[in-house]
Amino acid sequence: MLDYPALAALSEILRLGSFEAAASSLGVTPSAISQRIKTLEERMGEVLIHRGPPARGTDKALRLVQHLDQVRLLERQLAPQDRPTLLRLAVNADSLATWFLPVLGALDLIYDLVLDDQDHSRDWLRQGQVSAAISAEPQAVPGCDVIALGRMRYLAMATPAFIARHFPDGPTEAALRAAPAVIFNQKDAAQSRWAEALTGRRLHLSGHRIPASEAFAQAVALGLGWGMIPEAMIRPGLAPLSPLPLDVPLYWHIQRALKPALAPLTAAIRKRAAAELRP
Amino acid sequence: MLDYPALAALSEILRLGSFEAAASSLGVTPSAISQRIKTLEERMGEVLIHRGPPARGTDKALRLVQHLDQVRLLERQLAPQDRPTLLRLAVNADSLATWFLPVLGALDLIYDLVLDDQDHSRDWLRQGQVSAAISAEPQAVPGCDVIALGRMRYLAMATPAFIARHFPDGPTEAALRAAPAVIFNQKDAAQSRWAEALTGRRLHLSGHRIPASEAFAQAVALGLGWGMIPEAMIRPGLAPLSPLPLDVPLYWHIQRALKPALAPLTAAIRKRAAAELRP
Repeated sequence: MLDYPALAALSEILRLGSFEAAASSLGVTPSAISQRIKTLEERMGEVLIHRGPPARGTDKALRLVQHLDQVRLLERQLAPQDRPTLLRLAVNADSLATWFLPVLGALDLIYDLVLDDQDHSRDWLRQGQVSAAISAEPQAVPGCDVIALGRMRYLAMATPAFIARHFPDGPTEAALRAAPAVIFNQKDAAQSRWAEALTGRRLHLSGHRIPASEAFAQAVALGLGWGMIPEAMIRPGLAPLSPLPLDVPLYWHIQRALKPALAPLTAAIRKRAAAELRP
Repeated sequence: MLDYPALAALSEILRLGSFEAAASSLGVTPSAISQRIKTLEERMGEVLIHRGPPARGTDKALRLVQHLDQVRLLERQLAPQDRPTLLRLAVNADSLATWFLPVLGALDLIYDLVLDDQDHSRDWLRQGQVSAAISAEPQAVPGCDVIALGRMRYLAMATPAFIARHFPDGPTEAALRAAPAVIFNQKDAAQSRWAEALTGRRLHLSGHRIPASEAFAQAVALGLGWGMIPEAMIRPGLAPLSPLPLDVPLYWHIQRALKPALAPLTAAIRKRAAAELRP
């Protein structure tokens, strides 16, 4: 078996950023914490913490902490826990900005959300760094189950003044190449995918990068560029470049071992997705 | 002198994620792109790109691209440019969610925003990865100027039901240790700093991590925890844990060489900060 007090020390160090803070939080001496980590590193045969400050975990350390959280989540069904149980989830930013947050009330846990683009949130699960994920990827990660939730509809929006200036003849290939888009981050392919569906050509769009959902929608409303906006976030005064939507199917990926413990959360997610997403 | 066509190739590869996409965007062959990068790597004496996919730049590559963008920004004052000029800025998430975005209209540039906590956004400037930053840090980075913008006021807020359940005797040290907070990310110290100012003790708070400004405020409104919310984002129905505010001074840090080229942006930032922040 793994040394669980040592994993608890590792978890606190990474959460709080220092050996001293972890010692104070766990009510033990810093040297006891150091000793636990040293023994754990010897057992694992590799360094687990870059000492910092702040102290940072290696990939292996993050996987160990994630395992500890999962064990705590399972223990919770058997016995009361002495500290709040943590659940780490990857959620795509637009789900968080629209329908997702109220489901968290379904379980009395402490949630640690990791944000990413919908095409990449599942990667966090594959890397063993989260227990579950909302993602646009349909393929299951080994050891995980997948539940289809519905489709989030995006429309290509801009201000009427922006459309008049940049798209006088509609969203032609040339106009799409030249007009600034608003892009969530480097990994965000929504604009390119929609432009490809519309024109049949893969275009290299250039644009502002605004890596926050609300600010993204606000940037479009300010006329900085055109962008793919989830239906639920479209503000009055914007117009579509074309009626063609981009539908992004969303899936709930969950570690199979945690499925019973997280059943109330899964039920809340299914219910809310059924109400807020397209079938 | 550096080889600017090679830097342009490097920039496009990192922006688009592949040599092929960069070649298509620049209208040259992939082998011409490879050759430019190879020559540049030999000149710099180090690898600049992890081939991927997606292709990712080393720290040195990111600094070179940032330098190219700065040179383009300076050139813009002398001659029309054949492609849109990119400006990379670090902005703290709460500024982006409240007052910052409309200032971007002051210059006709393509903006690439990097988001971070207000205590760390300046680090991006020090690492040479952005041209300017909004940060709570008053000390200038070498080669940069600092302009004080005013203070963003935060209040410790929660729902009345949350306060009745977790803080029946007010925000005591014991209650603050036990009640779940909402925390932006691991680096976010706003809750701890406020709790220390209130109690005189450094507390280790535990809480949900919600790394998006609007969702953070929504999580507090849903009763998941208490959190420090910017005045401008406080929703009706929330109550303060205490009248004690946390005032965060904000500064505009800007590369000195770019100050003339970015003067209209700086003027817009000063004007909007004067209207939206506390003096």
